[in-house]
Amino acid sequence: MKAVVYHDAYSVAVEDVPDPRIEDPRDVIVQITSTNICGSDLHMYEGRTGVEEGKILGHENMGVVAEAGEAVENFSAGDRVSVPFNVACGTCRNCLRGWTSFCLRTNPTKGVDGSAYGYASMGPYAGGQAEFLRVPYADFNLLGLPEGTEHEKDFTMLSDIFPTGYFGTDLAGVKPGDTVAVFGAGPVGLLAVHSAFLRGAARVFAVDMQPDRLTLAEQFGADSVSFGDGDPAEQILEATNGAGADCGVDAVGYQAHDPAGDERPQLVLDWLVDSVRSTGRIGVIGVYLPQDPGAATEEAKEGKIAFDFGRLFQKGQSLGTGQCPVKRYNEKLRDLIIAGRATPSKVVSHELPLSAAADAYDKFDKRVDGYTKVILHPAA
Amino acid sequence: MKAVVYHDAYSVAVEDVPDPRIEDPRDVIVQITSTNICGSDLHMYEGRTGVEEGKILGHENMGVVAEAGEAVENFSAGDRVSVPFNVACGTCRNCLRGWTSFCLRTNPTKGVDGSAYGYASMGPYAGGQAEFLRVPYADFNLLGLPEGTEHEKDFTMLSDIFPTGYFGTDLAGVKPGDTVAVFGAGPVGLLAVHSAFLRGAARVFAVDMQPDRLTLAEQFGADSVSFGDGDPAEQILEATNGAGADCGVDAVGYQAHDPAGDERPQLVLDWLVDSVRSTGRIGVIGVYLPQDPGAATEEAKEGKIAFDFGRLFQKGQSLGTGQCPVKRYNEKLRDLIIAGRATPSKVVSHELPLSAAADAYDKFDKRVDGYTKVILHPAA
Amino acid sequence: MKAVVYHDAYSVAVEDVPDPRIEDPRDVIVQITSTNICGSDLHMYEGRTGVEEGKILGHENMGVVAEAGEAVENFSAGDRVSVPFNVACGTCRNCLRGWTSFCLRTNPTKGVDGSAYGYASMGPYAGGQAEFLRVPYADFNLLGLPEGTEHEKDFTMLSDIFPTGYFGTDLAGVKPGDTVAVFGAGPVGLLAVHSAFLRGAARVFAVDMQPDRLTLAEQFGADSVSFGDGDPAEQILEATNGAGADCGVDAVGYQAHDPAGDERPQLVLDWLVDSVRSTGRIGVIGVYLPQDPGAATEEAKEGKIAFDFGRLFQKGQSLGTGQCPVKRYNEKLRDLIIAGRATPSKVVSHELPLSAAADAYDKFDKRVDGYTKVILHPAA
Amino acid sequence: MKAVVYHDAYSVAVEDVPDPRIEDPRDVIVQITSTNICGSDLHMYEGRTGVEEGKILGHENMGVVAEAGEAVENFSAGDRVSVPFNVACGTCRNCLRGWTSFCLRTNPTKGVDGSAYGYASMGPYAGGQAEFLRVPYADFNLLGLPEGTEHEKDFTMLSDIFPTGYFGTDLAGVKPGDTVAVFGAGPVGLLAVHSAFLRGAARVFAVDMQPDRLTLAEQFGADSVSFGDGDPAEQILEATNGAGADCGVDAVGYQAHDPAGDERPQLVLDWLVDSVRSTGRIGVIGVYLPQDPGAATEEAKEGKIAFDFGRLFQKGQSLGTGQCPVKRYNEKLRDLIIAGRATPSKVVSHELPLSAAADAYDKFDKRVDGYTKVILHPAA
Repeated sequence: MKAVVYHDAYSVAVEDVPDPRIEDPRDVIVQITSTNICGSDLHMYEGRTGVEEGKILGHENMGVVAEAGEAVENFSAGDRVSVPFNVACGTCRNCLRGWTSFCLRTNPTKGVDGSAYGYASMGPYAGGQAEFLRVPYADFNLLGLPEGTEHEKDFTMLSDIFPTGYFGTDLAGVKPGDTVAVFGAGPVGLLAVHSAFLRGAARVFAVDMQPDRLTLAEQFGADSVSFGDGDPAEQILEATNGAGADCGVDAVGYQAHDPAGDERPQLVLDWLVDSVRSTGRIGVIGVYLPQDPGAATEEAKEGKIAFDFGRLFQKGQSLGTGQCPVKRYNEKLRDLIIAGRATPSKVVSHELPLSAAADAYDKFDKRVDGYTKVILHPAA
Repeated sequence: MKAVVYHDAYSVAVEDVPDPRIEDPRDVIVQITSTNICGSDLHMYEGRTGVEEGKILGHENMGVVAEAGEAVENFSAGDRVSVPFNVACGTCRNCLRGWTSFCLRTNPTKGVDGSAYGYASMGPYAGGQAEFLRVPYADFNLLGLPEGTEHEKDFTMLSDIFPTGYFGTDLAGVKPGDTVAVFGAGPVGLLAVHSAFLRGAARVFAVDMQPDRLTLAEQFGADSVSFGDGDPAEQILEATNGAGADCGVDAVGYQAHDPAGDERPQLVLDWLVDSVRSTGRIGVIGVYLPQDPGAATEEAKEGKIAFDFGRLFQKGQSLGTGQCPVKRYNEKLRDLIIAGRATPSKVVSHELPLSAAADAYDKFDKRVDGYTKVILHPAA
Repeated sequence: MKAVVYHDAYSVAVEDVPDPRIEDPRDVIVQITSTNICGSDLHMYEGRTGVEEGKILGHENMGVVAEAGEAVENFSAGDRVSVPFNVACGTCRNCLRGWTSFCLRTNPTKGVDGSAYGYASMGPYAGGQAEFLRVPYADFNLLGLPEGTEHEKDFTMLSDIFPTGYFGTDLAGVKPGDTVAVFGAGPVGLLAVHSAFLRGAARVFAVDMQPDRLTLAEQFGADSVSFGDGDPAEQILEATNGAGADCGVDAVGYQAHDPAGDERPQLVLDWLVDSVRSTGRIGVIGVYLPQDPGAATEEAKEGKIAFDFGRLFQKGQSLGTGQCPVKRYNEKLRDLIIAGRATPSKVVSHELPLSAAADAYDKFDKRVDGYTKVILHPAA
Repeated sequence: MKAVVYHDAYSVAVEDVPDPRIEDPRDVIVQITSTNICGSDLHMYEGRTGVEEGKILGHENMGVVAEAGEAVENFSAGDRVSVPFNVACGTCRNCLRGWTSFCLRTNPTKGVDGSAYGYASMGPYAGGQAEFLRVPYADFNLLGLPEGTEHEKDFTMLSDIFPTGYFGTDLAGVKPGDTVAVFGAGPVGLLAVHSAFLRGAARVFAVDMQPDRLTLAEQFGADSVSFGDGDPAEQILEATNGAGADCGVDAVGYQAHDPAGDERPQLVLDWLVDSVRSTGRIGVIGVYLPQDPGAATEEAKEGKIAFDFGRLFQKGQSLGTGQCPVKRYNEKLRDLIIAGRATPSKVVSHELPLSAAADAYDKFDKRVDGYTKVILHPAA
């Protein structure tokens, strides 16, 4: 089959690789209909991870069941499915509590709980930027979708970024009537904005510096705040008569850049502490790493982020973090798409055939030609 | 009346001061029967705060109503009461949500929500290490106690450290059957241990280096872990077959000292991140400050604590922080004392007359003669 | 001043009565700008309660502060406010837990917790269908509104029926993506529909038999189900492929009528048990009474409702009930109105001067001329 | 193998039956070491159900894995395990939300969600009062136990009645410091008492009429209330100065008998409504049935229980019901047993060899010789 294979920094290619096959009676093989490129794929693409040469990339996958193992009961050939990016066993302590992103069984890497398809350090699972994908523990992991092709562009957001954006608002405890500050208006941040409104937020501030992202945020109903125009926390405080937001979401992570373009990993956390009212909650879905050899300071290289913790304590704020357990949210988000109440596809900039993957990676990485969110279609 | 007055670093004295009086129809004057010295009083005693000369100290107070303002309905002269350390209005957004420790109305200090009796930066309220205390918004703030003198030594823990220890376990989400790691076995940490068991914990690790504190922790049912014997996180992981604790409590704060005696503000947070399992929750009740002029590094002077946030994110942990909203917990903790199920008084080392306060401050600050928790009795 | 006074069954009149005055330093006098007639006012109007002759009716009130007692701090003359229908002390056990509808202090009636303005058995408080209203514990009870007259028609729904509808969805645990069944499409049921969508429901079924109500429900986004067309539970099961609704709301109560027009107090509860999936939650905001002398059976006269409890247990459902604690919800609902995300005023059929009250009661009681929700304006 | 086989009313026998075998790759065969007789087994024994002739009884099972199917990963031969009474698939909507007692896949009976071993109407699963038991979906259903024989008598309570008692307190929302009323002091009620204290209750009232049960309840720390001495609700109100209990548990169900010995299915619910304070929660774990041909009234035959719903509404109480999802609780309860903090075995009256089963059923049914809770040991 054809698949997007990682070779080296800035080098991926669509190549012929062996088809995946059922390895365990609980496996399913999915024929991929849509597979997205994620911002986090660029970490690997840029060579900042230890991903192995030859890895098939792609953790945002959906398609149709091609073959099911003999111990698979809930799905059979022909069923349309979304594949959460987390590979989860369904029976460990964390999976049982809904934390499929921290499965204790599927990742052999010592000290790391949780795994994913086609991802550095997240276990030996091939990605889905390919014609076919093997899905372990399929009865547990797959989400059924209505047959046909309707909502394909929305449903393909269910494997990662729509649940991830929603997770941010859940960690932040967004409730009806709340005022929410979302930092970062990339695809995940935008879907955090969308999710905040789905949860009943009265008002959402979207903070970024890119005008096109801020425009898109406004289309999702947000008040846009450009940190190019000054301290975003001050802008939010002013817009709320000094009260601050009820809760906040960090959809940026350690690779935050200040207006001058310098990387400052604590930047967004500090802004959030200032923007959110006392006793408010902060959901951190932007990635922070325990090791970051490319960081500017010795501390940051070890993942030690010197943010304003004293002020956080003084304000009695709380923080939730981590990778999203997609399965906790994808069923209900699917139902909102079917009901016409959620339209995450608004963040999509390009739909391309799988064969265009190498070029798409290049352009997405360079942020040219409006590349913000790309869907690849293997069958196109 | 007699009261403990702050003069300068290491200088407090019991002096004659004017009696407090009803200033607002919602005030009550309480005749103090027990008032404790808190570890946090030592911050002021040591001259590390900006507390003003002449301030009456003392925020852990209980007694009997001497006089009630005319708009006070729930209490009248002769009622025995516990006074939460927080001065709270009862009607602001935070008070209404149970966050009396972040009252938006009672502290005129800009940027600081929440206030307390006899405390630096926490509003203009005189303390209760005195014969009488004025309590604002008394209908809301006071907790009624059974008349008489029974349980006095336990009830006096209701104004601060018992609810504060309990709050730590609430922030950490301790549930029946959980394994809990409590860092710091001073009075607050010990009552966090006690609270964890009251909430049904199966197993509690108490981490400290002082043998007498660890012994007391064992008397509360904890497994003691001395960080003098090696990395406490490793000890906890080993004792839990690598699983780690389900949740953790930081009852130390920024003044953490490593085994060599050096102050390292991020020490306990790093240990907690390592000790607690992925997806676990951490309650931070040990104090962190936004400014700490005496700190060792430039970052720490600004309250920026470079702890292992990358690892926290990788483990999907969450953190809750802040000063305790006493009122949220004190009623039920009182009922547990009355029922004989809670005995926080085990942490008390000394009961003394108010006149002994200066000597008690000195000895408590030097940690000599077994001074760990002192109750002062103005009438003794 | 002018006020709507109850005389006897089917007899109310607008009359001159003495102005209310500050009776306690915590009182406020509100000049009423809008006061609604509630469906529950008709219970009194029809003479089915023991309300005393001479009572001023009206518990859905808003206006402007005319005078504030000397212990009132948060409000002063000129402030625009909404008055929750519950009279609550703010410091009893129930008020402190957010259950202002079950205040332990304000209702002298033995065995009944909670009180209201202008209502039978709910304490000695005059109603607000008048030019002025006395509000006890004003700092706690009043909700501030933006000055001016904007959103008046929406804000006046904040005193009762918007929070009450919302409370039904909260008791039912409505979460984003849920499918919800709301029984009863009167004003409260309609605002339960509205609230379900504000909380993120994917799909809401509104069940009634009146075509005009069902049309209005559709305008709020609901799927309408007429029980005139057959068993509504079967209709909902069919529309959900046999799954049933995730949760349900009873906005009807004991005065439920079957398609033949007979009163059957257990009707809606039975339908809910059948309509809602196993483990689902049911919120009961329609009123059930402990005594109902006019009921058809001996059991029903004592409030004993023989509904299908065995089936409820077999399905593992849960039930929440009671009068709404308005204060728990009105602030956030206000913010949703201000943000333009909530428009409860859609349920209003008539706006009339206070002088038209007697006629309005008559027509509303007879359900003629489209009378569904009436706002009275004393100043008009 | 030997097994307890149901023949007819009051007729069970230990007989030779075929050994169970792996039927699906996800199955496990457990060699039973302990299997209890449950009060609910007596419903079948007395012939009040439609259980088929030849059914092997027994849903409270534990033992050692004898054989594991090839798709079983978490358990292998020799592992000691507890078997929850619910047979659950682990991947349906209800299982995924922790409601294994309402599994949508394992019970082919139309309209009934959830299944169990050896039980009428709960699916085609043989019971475990036998030498061996087949366990479907074993990776999901089984709970691992420490190897050996320690705590056997406590661990065998993990399959049903300890989690069920705990579930009652969870439905009732028991929190630290609460006062709880538990109706019924049979084995399940006693373990509800035990659970209430594990969750931190300050005070628990146990209501029954049998002196031996009340004595046992006192040994678990409860205040005993005999309804032979008068209305138990009045006794509880008096003991709480009129406040009532914070929450309540119904561990009796529809077969409640009044002091005169008459069956009155609404009796306990009415008492709970009266005993529990306004806004309090009630957990119903005693069984109510949708059909009960042996009931006294036409309504009760259809499971329609005419309890005091009007009063429940007036008090704003809430109710949770249903069979216990054992898996939600058994792991943490196991940990509490291991830690020495829970000792559910106190309810056991007899330990007998499997061969004594027929006699044990007879005596347990007649409540003679102190038979309250019997453990059968197939290997004894």
